[in-house]
Amino acid sequence: MLKTVSINHLGQHIGEEVAVYGWLHAKRSSGKIVFLQMRDGTGFVQAVMVRSDVSDDTFTEASALTQESSLRITGIVKADERAPSGVELQAVTLETLQLTHDYPITPKEHGVDFLMDHRHLWIRSPRQRSILKIRAEIIRAIRAFFDDREFTQVDPPILTPSACEGTTNLFHTKYFDEDAYLTQSGQLYMEAAAMALGRVYSFGPTFRAEKSKTRRHLIEFWMIEPEMAFTTHEESVEIQEQLIVHVVAHVLRHCELELRTLGRDIDRLAKVVSPFPKISYDEAVAFLQKNGHEITWGDDFGAPHETEIAAQYEQPVFVERYPTSLKAFYMKPDPMRPEVVLCADLLAPEGYGEIIGGSQRIDDADLLFQRFEEHQLPADAYSWYLDLRKYGSVPHSGFGLGLERTVAWICGLEHVRETIPFPRLLYRLYP
Amino acid sequence: MLKTVSINHLGQHIGEEVAVYGWLHAKRSSGKIVFLQMRDGTGFVQAVMVRSDVSDDTFTEASALTQESSLRITGIVKADERAPSGVELQAVTLETLQLTHDYPITPKEHGVDFLMDHRHLWIRSPRQRSILKIRAEIIRAIRAFFDDREFTQVDPPILTPSACEGTTNLFHTKYFDEDAYLTQSGQLYMEAAAMALGRVYSFGPTFRAEKSKTRRHLIEFWMIEPEMAFTTHEESVEIQEQLIVHVVAHVLRHCELELRTLGRDIDRLAKVVSPFPKISYDEAVAFLQKNGHEITWGDDFGAPHETEIAAQYEQPVFVERYPTSLKAFYMKPDPMRPEVVLCADLLAPEGYGEIIGGSQRIDDADLLFQRFEEHQLPADAYSWYLDLRKYGSVPHSGFGLGLERTVAWICGLEHVRETIPFPRLLYRLYP
Repeated sequence: MLKTVSINHLGQHIGEEVAVYGWLHAKRSSGKIVFLQMRDGTGFVQAVMVRSDVSDDTFTEASALTQESSLRITGIVKADERAPSGVELQAVTLETLQLTHDYPITPKEHGVDFLMDHRHLWIRSPRQRSILKIRAEIIRAIRAFFDDREFTQVDPPILTPSACEGTTNLFHTKYFDEDAYLTQSGQLYMEAAAMALGRVYSFGPTFRAEKSKTRRHLIEFWMIEPEMAFTTHEESVEIQEQLIVHVVAHVLRHCELELRTLGRDIDRLAKVVSPFPKISYDEAVAFLQKNGHEITWGDDFGAPHETEIAAQYEQPVFVERYPTSLKAFYMKPDPMRPEVVLCADLLAPEGYGEIIGGSQRIDDADLLFQRFEEHQLPADAYSWYLDLRKYGSVPHSGFGLGLERTVAWICGLEHVRETIPFPRLLYRLYP
Repeated sequence: MLKTVSINHLGQHIGEEVAVYGWLHAKRSSGKIVFLQMRDGTGFVQAVMVRSDVSDDTFTEASALTQESSLRITGIVKADERAPSGVELQAVTLETLQLTHDYPITPKEHGVDFLMDHRHLWIRSPRQRSILKIRAEIIRAIRAFFDDREFTQVDPPILTPSACEGTTNLFHTKYFDEDAYLTQSGQLYMEAAAMALGRVYSFGPTFRAEKSKTRRHLIEFWMIEPEMAFTTHEESVEIQEQLIVHVVAHVLRHCELELRTLGRDIDRLAKVVSPFPKISYDEAVAFLQKNGHEITWGDDFGAPHETEIAAQYEQPVFVERYPTSLKAFYMKPDPMRPEVVLCADLLAPEGYGEIIGGSQRIDDADLLFQRFEEHQLPADAYSWYLDLRKYGSVPHSGFGLGLERTVAWICGLEHVRETIPFPRLLYRLYP
């Protein structure tokens, strides 16, 4: 029997006759030749069927093929420099598995709501497929980075008994007789894990029930949260920089075709190399003030502020040492200057905003307890977290990388909704 | 400054003086010598401090160290064949970072509830740490298996608008004005993804609000769900077998120390090689009947049945072609014999039950629609899923691997609660 080959491997079979299974992406016909553009999930290839090479029935069948019909084609692999895949297929036989009628997504323009309602089909398009491939390669690069550095993957719980930062943005569910909430971050659990395993990272979904509709927000999104015992803020920032450089280099190496499909400016990505610029929150505020923004020390940055700060640089920029009052209760104050914390946000270039937030954590039990009181947090629910400072506390740091923001930036997307297979947005829970 | 080395790398520094950061796991003292057993997350090592080698203050400090105190020790690395790590440390200096008082988990026996209440500390113990390391290596092996075979990782949604198999075992939450449920399986979404990307796999949490308290059930657990376009049931079973063989071999290669810490019978694991036995549901029923079980064709297997079937073999066993009435609506009937479906459960040896369930999926739109009616499923909510059979339907198969059951089996654990960092069980949501 003829060998079945996936489209991305056709280049290794030039001159051979092979079988390819897939779907019809598009068709052109000249009367004597039918050009069948096929996809199989691994790539796209053009099959050329010449009337005089095949039976009448086969040519008629090919001429009648519709978009997204499923099929098996056998043919001879030919090198073709003009083709993005480098090959084309000289068709010999055709078997139609299913002739598709009225495929809803046509080459014409569709509105966003229509496409989102048909997300289960929209992901078949070259653009959406490219994004999902790049997303998968970004995940692969992140995991390889941490695995190579001997971090242990740890999966923090999704259902949690209570929330550190109020319940307003939380999804609630009844957990038998108790109340439970969907996690917004696994960090506190990752701190416990770091005390057991040294260096750990998570890869999992997190949830924010925010009634905001911006191009940067998803309700359900994936985070990577590394946590490192015996690690300072400065060491953590160094690792963050290495991580981002590694991820971008991996995508450039493995996803050139996909980036080109998206029309991504590859030169911009190629500039993401060490070292990244670092500025303090103080410097960022002074810069914004000089550029006419009404902002005072102690204010948080909005998206326009982040965009303007990042626009000064071709690389991602670390903004360090935010005011203590702005940041989460667990961040360690700078010993030289306790009004700021040992933290950094990493802002992506080109207006994509914060992709990493990290800090050194408070390791002093008394200070952490004081913070619980200041923030009126339920010390009961978090007595386990306080335990980490009572029993062998050590300096430790960690950070959270937002996967979808990173995908949006690397792919150069307008909106974060295309970065995830089935986005969950305000009023969007289907399909 | 002295080089800081993690315990698992000490063997590469024999004869050198290095610094090690970690926690005191245990201590023995003879008056002239203190033996400090240290852990740092990467391993365990014994530091030997001889009174005559160090200052009186240092020796007094070492003698006063308590379990789980955090510390920095400098010392000279010595080869030691008797040590599991192969080395010991001849201590030179000691810095106590935090002297721990009244660490709750002592070497004495504790009850399960007490340990579960202190799960955030319990994971520091050699046994729990070993399980979490093996869990991480199993995850790594699974990802490598699929990455090497060019599967694309796809993350299906956690929040879903409705449920295929009734809402009784589902966690419910309000999604703004709508009702949403936590996913029990990403499979249907993975089928959509397979039509876009060919071969895909997921790695994510799933939820079952089951009021059952057995040693095999978690409320929140992680699943790996591969889905493959243009793949038959037989090809899928072949891949499942290769996957399990690969995972067990990887753990044997990378986790020998951890398996020994758990007292796992390594010879049993070494027998997990291809080919696995395959029996039909019919044969399994006949076998059970012969062995005195009151079971008739059409009944589902309970845990005792699965255990007895699996006990015949040293390897995992595939049980194929269950009655159509027993299995999920989307499974494809055997064309030769429609009262059974093209499915298989993989039962682990040693009484660990089902670790994989898989099948070929129905690819015929009419039959799938008929199943929706038979099962009274809301066709509206799943019209997107029916679309996959309307637009370019193809033969496809997939399966779900339960991570925690696999960890329990490979580690040889009594109860699945130890297989996950922070287990969610009936009445157990803390910490």
